[in-house]
Amino acid sequence: MVSRARRRQYLPILSWIGGYRGDTFAKDALAAVIVTIMLIPQSLAYALLAGLPPQVGLYASILPLVAYAVFGTSRSLAVGPVAVVSLLTATAVGQVAEQGTAGYLAAAILLALLSGAFLTAMGLFRLGFVANFLSHPVISGFITASGLIIAASQVKHILGVEAHGETLFRLVSALFHQLADTNIPTLMIGVMAIAFLFWVRRGLAPCLKKVGMKATTASMLAKAGPVLAIVVTIALTAIFRLDQQGVAIVGDIEGSLPPVAVPSVDLNLLRSLVGPAILISIIGFVESISVAQTLAAKRRQRIDPDQELIALGAANIASGLSSGYPVTGGFARSAVNFDAGAETPAAGAYTALGISLAALYLTPLLTFLPKATLAATIIVAVLSLVDIRAVGETMRYSKADGASMLATIIFTLGFGIETGVVAGVLLSLSLYLLKTSRPHMAIVGLVPGTEHFRNVDRHDVVTDDKVITLRVDESLYFANARGLEDIVYDLVADNPTLEHFVLMCPAVNSIDASALESLEAMNARLKDSGVTFHLSEVKGPVMDRLKRSHLLADLTGEVFLSQFAALSTLTPALVDGARDGAHPQAAAR
Amino acid sequence: MVSRARRRQYLPILSWIGGYRGDTFAKDALAAVIVTIMLIPQSLAYALLAGLPPQVGLYASILPLVAYAVFGTSRSLAVGPVAVVSLLTATAVGQVAEQGTAGYLAAAILLALLSGAFLTAMGLFRLGFVANFLSHPVISGFITASGLIIAASQVKHILGVEAHGETLFRLVSALFHQLADTNIPTLMIGVMAIAFLFWVRRGLAPCLKKVGMKATTASMLAKAGPVLAIVVTIALTAIFRLDQQGVAIVGDIEGSLPPVAVPSVDLNLLRSLVGPAILISIIGFVESISVAQTLAAKRRQRIDPDQELIALGAANIASGLSSGYPVTGGFARSAVNFDAGAETPAAGAYTALGISLAALYLTPLLTFLPKATLAATIIVAVLSLVDIRAVGETMRYSKADGASMLATIIFTLGFGIETGVVAGVLLSLSLYLLKTSRPHMAIVGLVPGTEHFRNVDRHDVVTDDKVITLRVDESLYFANARGLEDIVYDLVADNPTLEHFVLMCPAVNSIDASALESLEAMNARLKDSGVTFHLSEVKGPVMDRLKRSHLLADLTGEVFLSQFAALSTLTPALVDGARDGAHPQAAAR
Repeated sequence: MVSRARRRQYLPILSWIGGYRGDTFAKDALAAVIVTIMLIPQSLAYALLAGLPPQVGLYASILPLVAYAVFGTSRSLAVGPVAVVSLLTATAVGQVAEQGTAGYLAAAILLALLSGAFLTAMGLFRLGFVANFLSHPVISGFITASGLIIAASQVKHILGVEAHGETLFRLVSALFHQLADTNIPTLMIGVMAIAFLFWVRRGLAPCLKKVGMKATTASMLAKAGPVLAIVVTIALTAIFRLDQQGVAIVGDIEGSLPPVAVPSVDLNLLRSLVGPAILISIIGFVESISVAQTLAAKRRQRIDPDQELIALGAANIASGLSSGYPVTGGFARSAVNFDAGAETPAAGAYTALGISLAALYLTPLLTFLPKATLAATIIVAVLSLVDIRAVGETMRYSKADGASMLATIIFTLGFGIETGVVAGVLLSLSLYLLKTSRPHMAIVGLVPGTEHFRNVDRHDVVTDDKVITLRVDESLYFANARGLEDIVYDLVADNPTLEHFVLMCPAVNSIDASALESLEAMNARLKDSGVTFHLSEVKGPVMDRLKRSHLLADLTGEVFLSQFAALSTLTPALVDGARDGAHPQAAAR
Repeated sequence: MVSRARRRQYLPILSWIGGYRGDTFAKDALAAVIVTIMLIPQSLAYALLAGLPPQVGLYASILPLVAYAVFGTSRSLAVGPVAVVSLLTATAVGQVAEQGTAGYLAAAILLALLSGAFLTAMGLFRLGFVANFLSHPVISGFITASGLIIAASQVKHILGVEAHGETLFRLVSALFHQLADTNIPTLMIGVMAIAFLFWVRRGLAPCLKKVGMKATTASMLAKAGPVLAIVVTIALTAIFRLDQQGVAIVGDIEGSLPPVAVPSVDLNLLRSLVGPAILISIIGFVESISVAQTLAAKRRQRIDPDQELIALGAANIASGLSSGYPVTGGFARSAVNFDAGAETPAAGAYTALGISLAALYLTPLLTFLPKATLAATIIVAVLSLVDIRAVGETMRYSKADGASMLATIIFTLGFGIETGVVAGVLLSLSLYLLKTSRPHMAIVGLVPGTEHFRNVDRHDVVTDDKVITLRVDESLYFANARGLEDIVYDLVADNPTLEHFVLMCPAVNSIDASALESLEAMNARLKDSGVTFHLSEVKGPVMDRLKRSHLLADLTGEVFLSQFAALSTLTPALVDGARDGAHPQAAAR
């Protein structure tokens, strides 16, 4: 039993393949047809973005899908080349090889293998939680900024010029210098394709619905817009031989299945690709798991993040072994797969079959495909991910989160995508640490007629000159323990009549060794000052741990279960006076 | 008024110099005499540890004390050369210059200036909180490990051999190779000095107390032990001309006041010393502020951490301008100053006068001082700081804190002190982030007959199949938000009869933008699953912020003030049944 459970854990295919029936096949097959039609232009375009020959995009959309079908836990995820990972690949591989050389392709293949190995290892060691340290504002800012960079990097194909750069500034300035060399036929194709694709995205589905088509069918058909753009521009280019007028075309591609081979490994190359492989793995995993979770929740299905790491690892290793480049689960494509009715990961395997047929028989037809058309599909796809307004919205909710997002955008645009995401992560972690290092604290008093205690600055409460109660709204740990000491010592220095100091801990979820040290120091120093130190409302698990220390034995005062019990013991007269709602000595404000 | 308050803030001397009277002078002067006697051997020894000529230790004990008297907020802190900072100086300067050269001294002076500038800048920008990120286990582990390294680095002077290394392993192996060259007279002086100093530390004060001396006087006299050791070994060496038998001596020192000069600055040198200067500043500040706080609390006095940064910055700049090296407030010395009755920072200025006299007139007497004696005083002083047992104690209280301490010790011993402290800080921060990323959560049920809710796994409580209440014992932020989503989705997938999900937030002190996004996603996904999403016991400040978001408008359920109100609304039958203590459907365990 245990070994079968373990087999099922690592091979999720076993949990559905046994009960696979005809009606499920029909649904999966239909979804596969629709996803295939969407994936063909996408995989060609993203290969272009990654700086690779177009067929590599198709290769990366065959075996990886089969691998995911075997190992994946999502019923709807569609893996393959995606925009951000393609850009990361271009950046990483561009640093070690010249685009268009055999070395460039070899490095991209090695990157897929490395990323696959890293993802698999993370999954086996159950390290999926690492992705949690990428905050939402950082991811959102990163997607917006990389969308802008990707779009800018494709403008050269629309203009028919050469321009390279990893930051927005360099790309724009390179394009500006080449503006005079713009190829007019290329520009016309590119602009027309962009306009058409934007219209398809925004206007087609409503039109189709107006003429009586079902909403889902209409939006599904709209996804085929890129295919139409490709067919039309191929026809135009072939008929008018626009390639002879300077329109860059994809050119001859040999129709074949992906060559399966274990690549030879260059150790120096390996070493220089390890960093980018880790970054690609984590970002690809975050993108993939987000969409998988969203779709699974809609059908009350379950995703195992660690098994997803293994599945994405297997997909990337499959990609590397079949001349592909790094892949992951894509947002748009998976949503289409889900909406089209895919019920099991088998739909992915059928899509792989569709792409195989395309790789074998469609490639000769792609000779006259203008690169400008592919660039147009990329630009339209990524610009829909750009969301500048989110900065304002996030800033309104939380300045720290807004700052993280803005910093990620600025660093990504200004210093490249690797620097951008690293800067964003470090900033968001630092701001979190900074916030917890300065916890909210309040001196509290008794609300007359109740057993409740509230901030003396915000409420009309009663207090006593001989007793100060400080409530701390955060766990106590090294970064805030010394700050708490400072505040307590200042309070003691400012209140010469003080006899009792109560630290109220209802929101203290833990006390680490440094904070324990600080509490012991406070206890000792308050004793030197003639003030008794008490605790109140200490949580069970925190108390369990404190019992393992000297603090409770050394404490000059008591640990009270409730703050009301504390005040009733320390200053019964005040409590009696406040019982009937009188204010013997109400705090100002 | 404002400008006077600001003057007093930045020049704390103004707050006491006006009321300075004769009796205060008498107390300060007595403390100064005692501290001077203690400081002379210390400053000579620490200069040796830093690899500098002995008079540099005296120079670093004159103007810095005057600067601190003007700018410092502690009434008792005694600044000057200290062990750890001297070792850090030796490490940093040893990387850019050869010991014994003019360049070595110039680099140490530049290091003091850099450290002074950095401390002052931190103080002006009120960045004192940065030191809070050094946790107590990291500091404690660092002090233990650097104590061992310092002691090991001095053994060569006891053996009379040459041995260098920055890690314990290299030091020990270097000493082992030189063992055959041990100089017997040196070894005898060294071992006798160590034995004597240990006896003075452990046995002298009790002896003096037995013969009727007051405890404070006895322990004060015991502090003069190093002076006695110096006098006796100088006499022995001079009389028997042990220097001609291979005993290394301090040699001729020209008696003079420190030469005051602005050193010329080499930009390359500057650049390579910036990192060590920052580390020295932060570690020195932590050591100094700890002792200042401890002593101030005993007299209900107050320390301003940011002004302390400025004061230590001024002290280091003064040291750099007078041929000194980095200084800070020392533990032992400040405690002696306090016990001897120092009432104002003027005591430090009088100590400076005492050291000036020593620098002018005492240096000729130090010619025959054996380096072994100075090494013995260092070894005895630092070994008292080594506390290996603290690892076990800390580990018992908290495994994470124990691991940080152990890692700091191992990395410091094995890879040098800079690597050690950086590794410790990074590990302690990572462990804290990891802990908060996996918060304690509990499914809770109603305790029959009460309005209290407790963990279903720990208590005998009542629950309902249609309602799940999850209590989260941590603030929600990006690192734990996705984990919470996973748990919620799993609960929903596992409970097909579920209708209401309540997130109970009494310990949630904040919700950041990522967690807000997760709550919105949960709300939407639970809606897709036909489950209503509620919140309960949301704190006031958290609620204020949520009102700025879409969550409350989109929420499928309600926000309940209390969990009891939530259950009373969602499943009144259960609440009615439990009112009289019956268990209609008690959860197992």
